[in-house]
Amino acid sequence: MDPHIKPELLPFHTAVARFAAGTSTPRALLEACIERIGALEPQIGAFVQLNLTRARDDADAATKRWQARAPLSPIDGMPVGVKDIIETDDMPTEMGSPLWLGHRARFDAASVAGLRDAGAVVVGKTVTTEFAATTPGGTRNPWDLRRTPGGSSSGSAASVGVGMLPAALGTQVVGSILRPAGFCGAVGFKPSVGAINRGGSLDFLSQSATGVIAASLQDAWLTAHEIARRVGGDPGHKALAGPEGPPLPLRPQALGLLQTAGWERATPAAKQELDRAVHALREAGIAVRTRRDDAQIEALELALEEAEPLTRLINAWEWRWPMMAFAARDQSGLSAASRERFEWQKTLTPDQYDPAVARRAEIHAQHARLRGVVDALVTLTAPGAAPVGLGWTGDPMFVVPGSFLGVPAITQPLLADEGMPLGLQLLGWHGKDAELFGIAAWVRGVMGAA
Amino acid sequence: MDPHIKPELLPFHTAVARFAAGTSTPRALLEACIERIGALEPQIGAFVQLNLTRARDDADAATKRWQARAPLSPIDGMPVGVKDIIETDDMPTEMGSPLWLGHRARFDAASVAGLRDAGAVVVGKTVTTEFAATTPGGTRNPWDLRRTPGGSSSGSAASVGVGMLPAALGTQVVGSILRPAGFCGAVGFKPSVGAINRGGSLDFLSQSATGVIAASLQDAWLTAHEIARRVGGDPGHKALAGPEGPPLPLRPQALGLLQTAGWERATPAAKQELDRAVHALREAGIAVRTRRDDAQIEALELALEEAEPLTRLINAWEWRWPMMAFAARDQSGLSAASRERFEWQKTLTPDQYDPAVARRAEIHAQHARLRGVVDALVTLTAPGAAPVGLGWTGDPMFVVPGSFLGVPAITQPLLADEGMPLGLQLLGWHGKDAELFGIAAWVRGVMGAA
Repeated sequence: MDPHIKPELLPFHTAVARFAAGTSTPRALLEACIERIGALEPQIGAFVQLNLTRARDDADAATKRWQARAPLSPIDGMPVGVKDIIETDDMPTEMGSPLWLGHRARFDAASVAGLRDAGAVVVGKTVTTEFAATTPGGTRNPWDLRRTPGGSSSGSAASVGVGMLPAALGTQVVGSILRPAGFCGAVGFKPSVGAINRGGSLDFLSQSATGVIAASLQDAWLTAHEIARRVGGDPGHKALAGPEGPPLPLRPQALGLLQTAGWERATPAAKQELDRAVHALREAGIAVRTRRDDAQIEALELALEEAEPLTRLINAWEWRWPMMAFAARDQSGLSAASRERFEWQKTLTPDQYDPAVARRAEIHAQHARLRGVVDALVTLTAPGAAPVGLGWTGDPMFVVPGSFLGVPAITQPLLADEGMPLGLQLLGWHGKDAELFGIAAWVRGVMGAA
Repeated sequence: MDPHIKPELLPFHTAVARFAAGTSTPRALLEACIERIGALEPQIGAFVQLNLTRARDDADAATKRWQARAPLSPIDGMPVGVKDIIETDDMPTEMGSPLWLGHRARFDAASVAGLRDAGAVVVGKTVTTEFAATTPGGTRNPWDLRRTPGGSSSGSAASVGVGMLPAALGTQVVGSILRPAGFCGAVGFKPSVGAINRGGSLDFLSQSATGVIAASLQDAWLTAHEIARRVGGDPGHKALAGPEGPPLPLRPQALGLLQTAGWERATPAAKQELDRAVHALREAGIAVRTRRDDAQIEALELALEEAEPLTRLINAWEWRWPMMAFAARDQSGLSAASRERFEWQKTLTPDQYDPAVARRAEIHAQHARLRGVVDALVTLTAPGAAPVGLGWTGDPMFVVPGSFLGVPAITQPLLADEGMPLGLQLLGWHGKDAELFGIAAWVRGVMGAA
């Protein structure tokens, strides 16, 4: 851990009681965030843009609402960051790419419009890798500045993990919410595909989702839920649904341990940490089934070995068009990695894509049949602590399955490796996001966390 | 008909033979289009923007390719228009709304990128109603300047119907491709939902599709197909698939006559015209089944009475977010109709939306079961000729079913009413767009058209 930075999560759901009691205000909370940003941002580099003028105005408005006992929602006055592929009407959206430098949208994306309508205070745009995909944007991990914060929602995870903000929006198609949230010691939530409206997020992928990185499970739920009730899910999809307050702990009967294709790359310490979690769950009376004692889990793990190559192929075809348009404008604005990927994309046709999508649907159905066997799947979020170096955002192997399956996934900072936070991941069922939050809250209790 | 304007379709698929023979060139064809635009545009008002400099450059490049016998595709050098909700990298995209005035995208939308990659020459952006939904944009019907061209793809239909262009892109969620194509005497094609990538089209609706208005069936197919093979369908969907050349006529065994909820509003002449078509089909040996002799068709027609109200509700919820963002910026930039609709949208929740989407899926399944009974459905495109007046784009009742069902729909100018063109519509099966083109070509032959 860096000796000069003490990461400390800044939950919002506990601040609300102080607002209601009149002992604090959204403006005071915002000023605390701004102070911490001022102190830490030069070392961490989580933000692309800040709009403190508007944030202060919005926090003042929220302060008045709380003082009048008329908040717009349970997240009224919550300072938030927005990943820089999601459009905002007051700040540029630059996609981590020189091709998008200075791009100004006229209107807020759906998720941002939902946040503002609920009273949340948008503080700034957070660093993303190029197109939320490849080249990292220079953000550092607040737990150890030599290490990656993970990607692609790098700035959202770092800013929340160190306590500059209670919550920030991210997006995930491979591992872009859970991986950085796990590496930075935050809670990460990727909803069911389709559950949060992606309109105005510059993301064109069939297994992508907009989600939340937050200081607490409660904040993650409230943020996602307040957005979804206002702007819905993706067109044609059911919006995230569930209780208005934080989901209550829900005791599962059985969990499935998912070891996945990345298992052999997990560090001994990480495996030991997961064993510790499994032991705690079994001590609490939960059946934890594994590939050794359940043929369906074993079959799913086998099928999930296809998750990474199929995800790569599906994404490559779905990125073909925007890359065509980007390259037509200025190929020199693309990173070497993007240019190389584009050479592959150009060779693809629907003859490769269609069967990949069909196979993905088969594996979705195979996973859904496990619902009668276990209540959720549990696994690591990463094979170990965030790696040293800023050139690589880390191994996504443990988070690819949730993306590929399109199911809700939550990481909580309940484990550790090399003195760094390590996420414990839970995977639920498509459309049953609230249920997974309940199980996550229960697991958190079992693991002895507050 | 206006005495001063003689609408005359300008097919591209026949021009190609002249390019190959060296008796014409894409540049010469473009100049003919520009001349016709110069003569007629002041009266018709089909365009929001023209970029003739780039069009001429692109046509010259296509000319060289044809002269070198190396065209990029069967639509290399084809002059096209682009509905002004679809983004282009060289012209603003203004959505028929003062809120979007001067909005410049950095990159071509997927459909435009596909067109350009195939060598097509983008001539200009065509007039749309506000947000492709409400207030008309002033375009006149070339067959009678007192009449509406239909909407919302008004400029695309008028420009193609009068022979200013061989083809133009449109979008349809209620009736916005087929209705104006039918009113202006053009061929209109709305593909299966998902079959053409909508990326970069400012359209956020689950039953919307990007399609083509063209001078010929061949041009409609070639245009759509050349786009889809390059940029695919919507993420997660199969792209439009089929032969590289125009689909060959395909003789159906049986067709279903769809009378729909708008039947009682059809004019006597329109009904008589449809009778004439049915008679011709039967003379050609095709069984044309109706609600009177087939219980499944009767049941579908009953179910389709829900198509219009469900479409309205689904669209209203799906427009809730962008309207929130538009209104947050400047409510005065919205038309009175949009403001009124927004008041309704604000009251909606997923509790209304989710059941509407579920019911739509049920009716999709009900329709799909008809595939064993008939090879396609046939009906009018509109209850009569384009109405007089520019304040209303006409009754969409006959085209709502195709939108609601998400199936391919084609209109051909094979009928007439009040001396105006009237479309004959065919509806196919989801994902079977090429098959519908084959049937449409066959029907065209039966109706004695070239």
